[in-house]
Amino acid sequence: MSVTAAKGFTAAGIAAGIKENGNPDLALVVNNGPRRAAAGVFTSNRVKAAPVLWSEQVLKGGEVGAVVLNSGGANACTGPKGFQDTHATAEKAAEVLNGISGFGASGTPGGSDRTDHGDHTDHSAGEIAVASTGLIGLPLPMDKLLPGIEKAAAELSEHGGEKAAIAIKTTDTIHKTAVVGGDGWTVGGMAKGAGMLAPGLATMLVVLTTDADVEAPALDTALRAATRTTFDRVDSDGCMSTNDTVLLLASGASAVTPAYEEFAEAVRTVCADLARQLIGDAEGASKDIRIEVINAATEDDAVEVGRSIARNNLLKCAIHGEDPNWGRVLSAIGTTGAAFEPDELNVAINGVWVCRDGAVGQDRDLVDMRYREVRITADLAAGTDSAVIWANDLTAEYVHENSAYSS
Amino acid sequence: MSVTAAKGFTAAGIAAGIKENGNPDLALVVNNGPRRAAAGVFTSNRVKAAPVLWSEQVLKGGEVGAVVLNSGGANACTGPKGFQDTHATAEKAAEVLNGISGFGASGTPGGSDRTDHGDHTDHSAGEIAVASTGLIGLPLPMDKLLPGIEKAAAELSEHGGEKAAIAIKTTDTIHKTAVVGGDGWTVGGMAKGAGMLAPGLATMLVVLTTDADVEAPALDTALRAATRTTFDRVDSDGCMSTNDTVLLLASGASAVTPAYEEFAEAVRTVCADLARQLIGDAEGASKDIRIEVINAATEDDAVEVGRSIARNNLLKCAIHGEDPNWGRVLSAIGTTGAAFEPDELNVAINGVWVCRDGAVGQDRDLVDMRYREVRITADLAAGTDSAVIWANDLTAEYVHENSAYSS
Repeated sequence: MSVTAAKGFTAAGIAAGIKENGNPDLALVVNNGPRRAAAGVFTSNRVKAAPVLWSEQVLKGGEVGAVVLNSGGANACTGPKGFQDTHATAEKAAEVLNGISGFGASGTPGGSDRTDHGDHTDHSAGEIAVASTGLIGLPLPMDKLLPGIEKAAAELSEHGGEKAAIAIKTTDTIHKTAVVGGDGWTVGGMAKGAGMLAPGLATMLVVLTTDADVEAPALDTALRAATRTTFDRVDSDGCMSTNDTVLLLASGASAVTPAYEEFAEAVRTVCADLARQLIGDAEGASKDIRIEVINAATEDDAVEVGRSIARNNLLKCAIHGEDPNWGRVLSAIGTTGAAFEPDELNVAINGVWVCRDGAVGQDRDLVDMRYREVRITADLAAGTDSAVIWANDLTAEYVHENSAYSS
Repeated sequence: MSVTAAKGFTAAGIAAGIKENGNPDLALVVNNGPRRAAAGVFTSNRVKAAPVLWSEQVLKGGEVGAVVLNSGGANACTGPKGFQDTHATAEKAAEVLNGISGFGASGTPGGSDRTDHGDHTDHSAGEIAVASTGLIGLPLPMDKLLPGIEKAAAELSEHGGEKAAIAIKTTDTIHKTAVVGGDGWTVGGMAKGAGMLAPGLATMLVVLTTDADVEAPALDTALRAATRTTFDRVDSDGCMSTNDTVLLLASGASAVTPAYEEFAEAVRTVCADLARQLIGDAEGASKDIRIEVINAATEDDAVEVGRSIARNNLLKCAIHGEDPNWGRVLSAIGTTGAAFEPDELNVAINGVWVCRDGAVGQDRDLVDMRYREVRITADLAAGTDSAVIWANDLTAEYVHENSAYSS
């Protein structure tokens, strides 16, 4: 169902020829209104891809009519030409969508009752968000991409969400979608990526849609709150992308305005679901590691400690080897500035407290690590705050996948 | 030559049975004077092994009579009992060395002219430094270690430096020593470890010795200056040990007091040599990566950027695959707070400027990456400061070596 689970959206996913292997590589998501409210969060990497620089500007207006997403190339570190290519992509999408909007105005569900925001069949490039994913530093083949937009527009459908989700895959082995239903309204979404707001190749892309009648500022608040505790706490390999983009589009097509808390919780649930799927499909991973830091003095302390554990290569190797190596957990905690006393630290792995008071605890042989999900609990004994970070193990397959020439 | 290259030192390395495979695992280094000045730097990990906590206290006195080092166990996260074990080790060493000191006073070169610091044949536990390396969280087999000290003491020799260097190996494939000669004085040393002041298993240990007649405060200044730009800038795998220890002992046996700058440079040279050897023998590595950050606004910026590049797993995989993936370098730079503009960044790999002005530069096919050493130059175009960080690639062998049960 993906991005077309919510009413008021059409989508398509096609093969434009950007990927040399002929796999789907271009997705189009269109908000048919009546509302076009939107919010977005982007990578905090200071080296930002052209589509991120573009879409950040688009989102400042609080309205997005459509999103063009491509795999097969990140359009990052491509200089002024790369930005021109993104601009041309948005212009082309606006032109093509306006060309079919006569049809759309009569043929799409939202076409007849667009009253609150004027004539939304008029698309302008300034309201077209663009997202790209793939190899950094290569120019996009615009001779493939631009005709691809026409092809995608011709295939726009209320049932196109699945195909759109498939078209944005890079090293993903599965496409990722999630849907939460409210009372008369829906939040759905799609994601690609093999890791964090810092994923494997060069990008996590997420598009969420809702037919709830919510204005841009509330969308923004709900989206930032949701990503802070979901995508921001997924750390597959510690490598932050130049292209990470999370968009939330609202069509208002349900004509229902849910209570803010209820809506925000739905957004958070969809984000958490997609984030969990990203970890579950991370490049080369054999384990999903849930790191919960408890009894921290502050939430920031808990996140800092969780991230330090998540990024410790030695521990990630140990987990891969099903070795409950709590010494490496302590070693990682010790590199942080969080409040704790070394001789008060406790660590559990899959529920067995293998470290008590900074030293040997329960018998490590009690720890069963056969399953994909591994739970590490780090008790800082310094307060009452907590946080959960998701990570993956480090495997020979990860090395292999990321050491191939120009992978 | 190692720690016995400088006059006034004896050393030994033996198999005490701490390692189950019967390999050498206990080293003893004794300063026979006439001076016993010493300085030390230790891990900045807040979770410190018992021997680190002990030796930090010993070094506060500025005098070290002997160092006991063991491999086969880190004595980290071992609680109060671990600290008692370290204390017992120092007590045993003092007792044993005092027992043979009658022999030593007449039989060792420095025995006849110990005048400036009293009778240095008297050892006390408070002047015995202890260093341990191996698995975290396991108690040391004191029934093996304490008799081992007697055995090592019986084998102390002016030619024992090599054996001492061998006895402190863990996953090291070779033992590491270095010597620099001054005008009538010498600085020598030994090291073990497979990485940073943050190595592979659980430790970098380094003992440097000199017969230069230098007092503790000058030793301390020279050692801190040297480690800051050598061991502190080696980052094999980003994992900081609980046991890292670097000691510098001065016997004064040459009766020469070199100019401070000359002495400090010799210490720096030995540290740089040993640090380079650590990188060259890092666990599972196939490449040594020299990351030079140039034209930074500050040295701190240069180090921050260098370390971010050094710790980027995706880049480390790419280097392993001999892929000059400059996009991953830019992505790593972008996560830092250093001063730079993304469209002014330049990156060279093995001298080829594959990235110019934040975009594609010279042809990546010009980059020859067949050799073990790979040079990455990151030009921040923001100032005149620079720094060099050494790192390794990430390999399937690293994963294998560190995922074996209780490695």
